[in-house]
Order: sequence, then structure tokens, then C-alpha cells
Amino acid sequence: MSPSTPRRPLIAIDWGTSSLRGARLDSTGQVLAAREFPRGILTVPAGQFEAVFRELFGDWMQATNALCLISGMAGSRQGWQEAPYCPCPAGFAELGQHLLWLQPGRMAIVPGLSCLHDAGLPVPQHDVMRGEEIQIFGALALTGQKDASVVLPGTHSKWAQVEAGRVQGFRSFMTGEVFALLSQQSILSRTLPADAPWHEGAFVHGVQLAQRTPSVLSSIFTTRTLALFGSLPAAQHPSFLSGLLIGEELRAMARPGSTVLLVGSALLAQRYATALHSMGLSSQSLGDEATWAGHAALAQQLNA
Amino acid sequence: MSPSTPRRPLIAIDWGTSSLRGARLDSTGQVLAAREFPRGILTVPAGQFEAVFRELFGDWMQATNALCLISGMAGSRQGWQEAPYCPCPAGFAELGQHLLWLQPGRMAIVPGLSCLHDAGLPVPQHDVMRGEEIQIFGALALTGQKDASVVLPGTHSKWAQVEAGRVQGFRSFMTGEVFALLSQQSILSRTLPADAPWHEGAFVHGVQLAQRTPSVLSSIFTTRTLALFGSLPAAQHPSFLSGLLIGEELRAMARPGSTVLLVGSALLAQRYATALHSMGLSSQSLGDEATWAGHAALAQQLNA
Repeated sequence: MSPSTPRRPLIAIDWGTSSLRGARLDSTGQVLAAREFPRGILTVPAGQFEAVFRELFGDWMQATNALCLISGMAGSRQGWQEAPYCPCPAGFAELGQHLLWLQPGRMAIVPGLSCLHDAGLPVPQHDVMRGEEIQIFGALALTGQKDASVVLPGTHSKWAQVEAGRVQGFRSFMTGEVFALLSQQSILSRTLPADAPWHEGAFVHGVQLAQRTPSVLSSIFTTRTLALFGSLPAAQHPSFLSGLLIGEELRAMARPGSTVLLVGSALLAQRYATALHSMGLSSQSLGDEATWAGHAALAQQLNA
Repeated sequence: MSPSTPRRPLIAIDWGTSSLRGARLDSTGQVLAAREFPRGILTVPAGQFEAVFRELFGDWMQATNALCLISGMAGSRQGWQEAPYCPCPAGFAELGQHLLWLQPGRMAIVPGLSCLHDAGLPVPQHDVMRGEEIQIFGALALTGQKDASVVLPGTHSKWAQVEAGRVQGFRSFMTGEVFALLSQQSILSRTLPADAPWHEGAFVHGVQLAQRTPSVLSSIFTTRTLALFGSLPAAQHPSFLSGLLIGEELRAMARPGSTVLLVGSALLAQRYATALHSMGLSSQSLGDEATWAGHAALAQQLNA
């Protein structure tokens, strides 16, 4: 048995807001089977989480020595049971100590992470994640990195700073949600075509402009004037706007010389990789495998 | 006759997107009467602008020596007649040269201003305004300033840099629209009370945090964690979010030592004045009078 394999079969559950995914891993950490259901926590009435779990994964739990780890929004106030956030800095050890055991030694909810940005102001500035922490540790396990920026693009992108295998802190960016609001609900939506194909050149223009503009609240208005002045074909405007917003994340967080691990959908990871590349920065992309690798690595830590 | 009075009676029209306002000024620049109608350009079918104008202001135009100046969105592509933007740098002289005369010597549309931010990139970054230029010149006329930052808070706030009485350039910020989208449509809306009273302390906290955060796309997520951690009473969250966004404008644009003229509604001007004051900057506020003063000053320039 290699040092990187869990010693017991593992049932890894990622229970998010809108979907429920699970994988069964053998004692070597190999994924034997995976399931996905549109049963995110928003679809589950209070008190019904255990019943839904038994219905969908009860057969897997018949393996009497299996360990079940549940990450994601199942640990939120609106989920199965609230698992208090594990404060940063946090590594595997802290995550393991903060597990919320539903059945001791057998089934646990993985807590999310919280961090506090002390800007020296009277109102504390917290940030939180639930589910992404498992992906972060999975990305570290898969790549063997211990020092990296781990970026999880999405509705609320996360940038986590990892040093010596521990998450020192992180920041959430409302990039995906702001893009959706601007392109569907704002004045910009009047001239943004809804179904334009992706245009990498326009996207990179947006990323580059984001590095030089005084404020993203101002640069996004440029998308409006592009239409007025015909400076860029309308079909390229959505890609340009996406570049302005993702470029703002990079302006704030990307640092030359750091290792960037991108974890998420291939589509989004590719956009971030393109944006980073346009700034002369390289990155490495990982997909769903990071989730199961994170569960497996945590299980191994528990069994060690 | 003082040097600051127009020599002919003036009919000043501010025809915006959602409202139509007019004022009749005597030959000394005094406002004799003002009217307002919910007849913004969006309510007027193409080809009907002259008819609507005659219906609502025809009586005023019976003064045979009157000059009529029309500012605002009436000069846009969707308005009465498109008046090409007057490029910056622009003072009264340039604005006067770019008037679009509907009736020579008698009735003209005041053009908006455009400026080009050269960030050294292949896609030109234009900015535009229509209607605010008259308020800017009115604010200068009323205060006697020739060098100032003129700020017009609103859905799309404008920051104009004026030197020697000429607008050198300006930037639009989608602050008001982004605030509305975030507080009504985003995940933040779930925990933001809709009818909370204004809270100056929370607003100032937001302004201060905006000066120290790496990105506004990240700081706005703080409004979500405030609710999770109970760090600030929920009733104060909308004011805090407003402070984050207005504070981002100030972070980008406010400079110590510059004269700031705020032109707009008393409510919004007061918030910007509070934000500036919290950063140790002073300002002077003007309201609707700036619009009519701008028309009067432009008329005087034409008659000189």
C-alpha cells in the first residue's frame, strides 16, 4: 500500500447548492463508481438529508468498514447539519480536527474554511468557502505542490494562498455573478448579443485593459461605448467584458513567479489560463478529479 | 448688464432618458418659470420630438427673440436628432462650435462630450456623457472655479477633470446601477433588507474598507459574510455596500488638494460629501440650479 492511498474504502460526497455528487473509492484511492443527482441542498427539506442520502447512497454504505466524507453546502446552516468553519491557516490536520462526525469514525461532514482579513477597521472582513477546500487539498495532492495560488473560477471565484501545504488565507470574487448580472440585466445587456461565440482576442484585450484602468466600475462602461463607437464587432463584446472582470481578479491577485493551480470546469479554467498566459504567467489546470483526490487525501490523513 | 447674463431670453431644455425639464430665463439669467414632464426620450416615437416640444413649450417660443438650447439625451441616436459628441478637451468655445442647430440662431441641441483614454491598447477606450456637460459648466459658472474635479453621482456617475475652464477628460462609473443589481438581484439580496434606513457609520466603514481592499469584486462579497458572522446589524448592510461602491470611485479618482464640486440630487451629493469627508477631502454641492446656470452661461458665450 503506497503512502498516498486510504486504508479503508471511501465514499466521497460533494453536496452542493444545486447538485449532489458521490464517488466510491477503493482502498487504493481509485474511483470505482460515481453518481450525480440534481438534489442540491436547496431541493432537500429540513430534516430530510439523511433520508435522501440513504436513498441515493445507502447501497454503498453497506460496506461495513467504509468511511464517508461529505463536503460542500451540506455543512451549511441550510444543509444537513451546520459544521462550523475551520479558520485559516488550515491544513489537513486542522480540517481533520474540525470534522463534524454524524456517525463517529464512520461518517463526517467536512467543514468549510473561513479567514479574516484584518484591514485595521472596526468591521471584521471575513471570507468563507464550503467545498472548495477539498478541491484545494486535492489539487495539492495531485500535483505534489505545497506552495501555490489555487484558483477556483466560478460564480464566486476563490483565490487561495497555500504555503507549506496549508491554506493561509483566501479571497472570494463575485466575478461570475457580476458578469451574469451585467450581461443580462444592466444597460450593457442592450447591446450585448446573448449567443455570441467566444472570442479569445477580445477577451485578452479586456484582460489587458483591466491591468491599466483605474477601476473596474469604470472599465465595464467601456463595453457600452464600444457599441456606440463601433470599435469592436458586437459579437466580441461579451468576451471583452468577461476579460475585464477576470482581468480585474488577476490584477488584484496574480503575482509573477507564483505557481497557479486552476481547479474547475475545463471551459472556465481555459479562460483563466489564457488570461494568465497573456500576462506572462503559467498555470496548471485540474478538473473534477481534484474533488475525489481531496477526499482520498483527507481519508488517508484520518487513517494515518 | 453684468458679464454673466445672457442678452436674450433663454429657453433651456434638459431632455433626458426618462424626464423632460424646461426653464424660461429672462435676459438677466433669472429663472422665471420651470416645467417638468414624464416625457423622456424613451416615451417619444421617432419623428415626434418637434411635436412634443411644441405642445409642451410652444407658448414660451412665442417670444420671437428667444434662444432655445436643448441638452441631454435628445441629442442621442434615439433622440430628436443625433448631435455628434464634442471631443475633450472641451470648454464653452468647443461646445458652442459643436451645437447642432435645428433652427439657425434660434434653437440648438447641445452635444454631449466624448473622451478617449489611451491605454496603449488596440481597442480604443471611449467615454461619453450627454447632459452632464451643461451641469459641469453650470457648476463652474456658479462657483467661479476653473480648475476642479466635478462629480455627478448617479446611475452612471461621472468624474470630470476641469483645467482652465475646460473638461480635460472624464470617467463614468456604473456605481448606481451595480448597487441596484447587487442589492436587488444578486446573492447579496438574500440578506439585505430592502427598506433599511440610511446608516452613516456603516457607509463610512464601507468607504474606508474600499481604500484598503485589493478589489471591489472581492470586497462586495464581505457584505455576504457580514450576515453569516453577524458582524454588523443587517439593517446597516445596504449602507455598508453603498460605501464599498462609492468608496471604490473615490479610491480611483479622489486626490488630496483638489477642489471637488458635487452636482446632483441632494441625497446622493450628501453621501459623496460624507465619503470624501471621511477621507479628509472637502467638497461643495450644487443641485438642479447648475443645469440652468450652464444653459445661461452657454447662451451668454453664444451672444458675446
